[in-house]
Amino acid sequence: VRFASTRTVTLIPGDGIGPEISAAVQKIFSAAQVPINWEPVDVTSVKGPDGKFGIPQAAIDSVNKNEIGLKGPLMTPIGKGHRSLNLALRKEFNLYANVRPCKSLDGYETLYKDVDVVTIRENTEGEYSGIEHEIVPGVVQSIKLITEDASRRVADFAFSYAKANGRSKVTVVHKANIMRMSDGLFLRCCREASKKFPEIKMEERYLDTVCLTMVQDPSQYDVLVMPNLYGDILSDLCAGLVGGLGLTPSGNIGLNGAIFESVHGTAPDIAGQDKANPTALLLSAVMMLRYMELGTYANKIEKACFEVIREGNKLTGDLGGKGKCSEFTDEICKKVESS
Amino acid sequence: VRFASTRTVTLIPGDGIGPEISAAVQKIFSAAQVPINWEPVDVTSVKGPDGKFGIPQAAIDSVNKNEIGLKGPLMTPIGKGHRSLNLALRKEFNLYANVRPCKSLDGYETLYKDVDVVTIRENTEGEYSGIEHEIVPGVVQSIKLITEDASRRVADFAFSYAKANGRSKVTVVHKANIMRMSDGLFLRCCREASKKFPEIKMEERYLDTVCLTMVQDPSQYDVLVMPNLYGDILSDLCAGLVGGLGLTPSGNIGLNGAIFESVHGTAPDIAGQDKANPTALLLSAVMMLRYMELGTYANKIEKACFEVIREGNKLTGDLGGKGKCSEFTDEICKKVESS
Ligand SMILES: CC(C)[C@H](C(=O)O)[C@@H](O)C(=O)O
Ligand SMILES: CC(C)[C@H](C(=O)O)[C@@H](O)C(=O)O
Repeated sequence: VRFASTRTVTLIPGDGIGPEISAAVQKIFSAAQVPINWEPVDVTSVKGPDGKFGIPQAAIDSVNKNEIGLKGPLMTPIGKGHRSLNLALRKEFNLYANVRPCKSLDGYETLYKDVDVVTIRENTEGEYSGIEHEIVPGVVQSIKLITEDASRRVADFAFSYAKANGRSKVTVVHKANIMRMSDGLFLRCCREASKKFPEIKMEERYLDTVCLTMVQDPSQYDVLVMPNLYGDILSDLCAGLVGGLGLTPSGNIGLNGAIFESVHGTAPDIAGQDKANPTALLLSAVMMLRYMELGTYANKIEKACFEVIREGNKLTGDLGGKGKCSEFTDEICKKVESS
Repeated sequence: VRFASTRTVTLIPGDGIGPEISAAVQKIFSAAQVPINWEPVDVTSVKGPDGKFGIPQAAIDSVNKNEIGLKGPLMTPIGKGHRSLNLALRKEFNLYANVRPCKSLDGYETLYKDVDVVTIRENTEGEYSGIEHEIVPGVVQSIKLITEDASRRVADFAFSYAKANGRSKVTVVHKANIMRMSDGLFLRCCREASKKFPEIKMEERYLDTVCLTMVQDPSQYDVLVMPNLYGDILSDLCAGLVGGLGLTPSGNIGLNGAIFESVHGTAPDIAGQDKANPTALLLSAVMMLRYMELGTYANKIEKACFEVIREGNKLTGDLGGKGKCSEFTDEICKKVESS
């Protein structure tokens, strides 16, 4: 195993419902006797010497030291100088691949059955470059930046991921018919990466076509890889098919670390009322355990979580139930302990 | 009425199945005795003096003269110098607003009932600016261009459209949390336009959230307005909810003209075999008639088309039937004639 001794994981509980769902995950991890220590850090926006707001140094140091983090939702304060801390974290640690599996949950019915797709999103550049100018008043340009390095890196990651997870196909999602040079470069990098993985089928599709066919028949898709914004869109679309962001995990993978996070909002309206659903953060933590090669614990916790959802007695309000966050959590703990 | 005498309409039959479905529309229009003349023009790509391929001058002249066109699918030849003629037409005639209604069709079942949304897409700039550079080898930028003029124009159009069509809400779809300047400008123009239409509700939503919630409950949406690429994606997604591009019409509206088109492909595999489904082009032609203030004819034809789909006897292969294009067309003609 990669991590033999007890590892320390940075925990960023986040804002709003973040602390409650983080506590829920910690409780379930204790019940499962997962051999990790938590190092909680606060990521409230702080004003730096340049007048801009950003991540506190203590949080940066912790992630750099531990190389692994679990993160609840962060709110972005409104006003000049504030940028999304969610994004700042991805950039700060060069978390180049965002992995979002979307799988139908037994017991939570939607219009779709048997969805089982994984979107892999380039996570550092593209439409998220942050480079924008006003050329003359009323004329603005935003730059979509695509580099060979970043494209290759995420393309390689996608195919390796597919192989390591027993997947058979990677769909490259693009608009190279329109953005011939930028998406063209991305596409070429994927074609090259695919050559190293003859056992994985590669398919190329336009983003619009993927959206259209995804809502008609998601079963035709497996792993999908794409530039940043397309991943933002498609991962949300796919989450919608299986029940929304409250049920889907997310992992941001970098060269020197990884942060797993629930990507739903901070839900300030229900914060502190023991009503929040910890599933997305818990499943993100399960992804984290697999990444840490603690798969036995991951399987045990995931199984317990799925069972509680299937049984349906303690579901939280967002899932149509009347359970409290703590009741839902305790149910999972019970299953974990008795397994 | 705006167009008192018999008007001439430029007909661009297009490639692949284009000629068959265009002939079907012409036949149905004759049966309905629509008072228009068709002026068919060929839009096969021709090489210009600059070595680039483009729209033949005769086609440009025809649309400029008639100020209205109906268009089947055009294929984009592969190879250097070729650009999409579909796009070239939108730019050439400054067709700034792309309107795509998506409505559930009685008799054609999908997972969704009662979808009734209209996406309005800025059609001339944004991610489709065509401006791209390779900065150094392996580093490419594509420019998303947002101007106040184009944003205002399409925003005004969206609210006017909502009002004229008895709609109650316009959702502005954006990522101004990421592209603060460009989508920010678009959003501000929409806010300003909305002030002139106090009777229409305006709502602002992130593109990713719209995708997620659209697949969960499309009934919450009405008219949606957005920059170019977002419209490309969302219009296809919505088409997917009601049965695909074979059933959904599209109109490109400009200051000095409009072109209505089916946005499905050329389907070369079934071309010339009397198997194509003319519905998307016919419904686009119906939109065109309404635009020309020939609403009585529009209603008659639309009603006949919907009836034939509801009855389900002559559906084409793509709709799960065994009907030929000509049989489906003749059924519609019969209904139109007897109405
Ligand atoms: C919070 C927001 C900046 C973020 C994004 O746009 O990437 C979110 O939508 C996500 O997908 O993680
Ligand atoms: C054919 C293609 C260039 C076009 C686009 O991307 O706009 C199509 O997808 C559409 O939506 O009309």
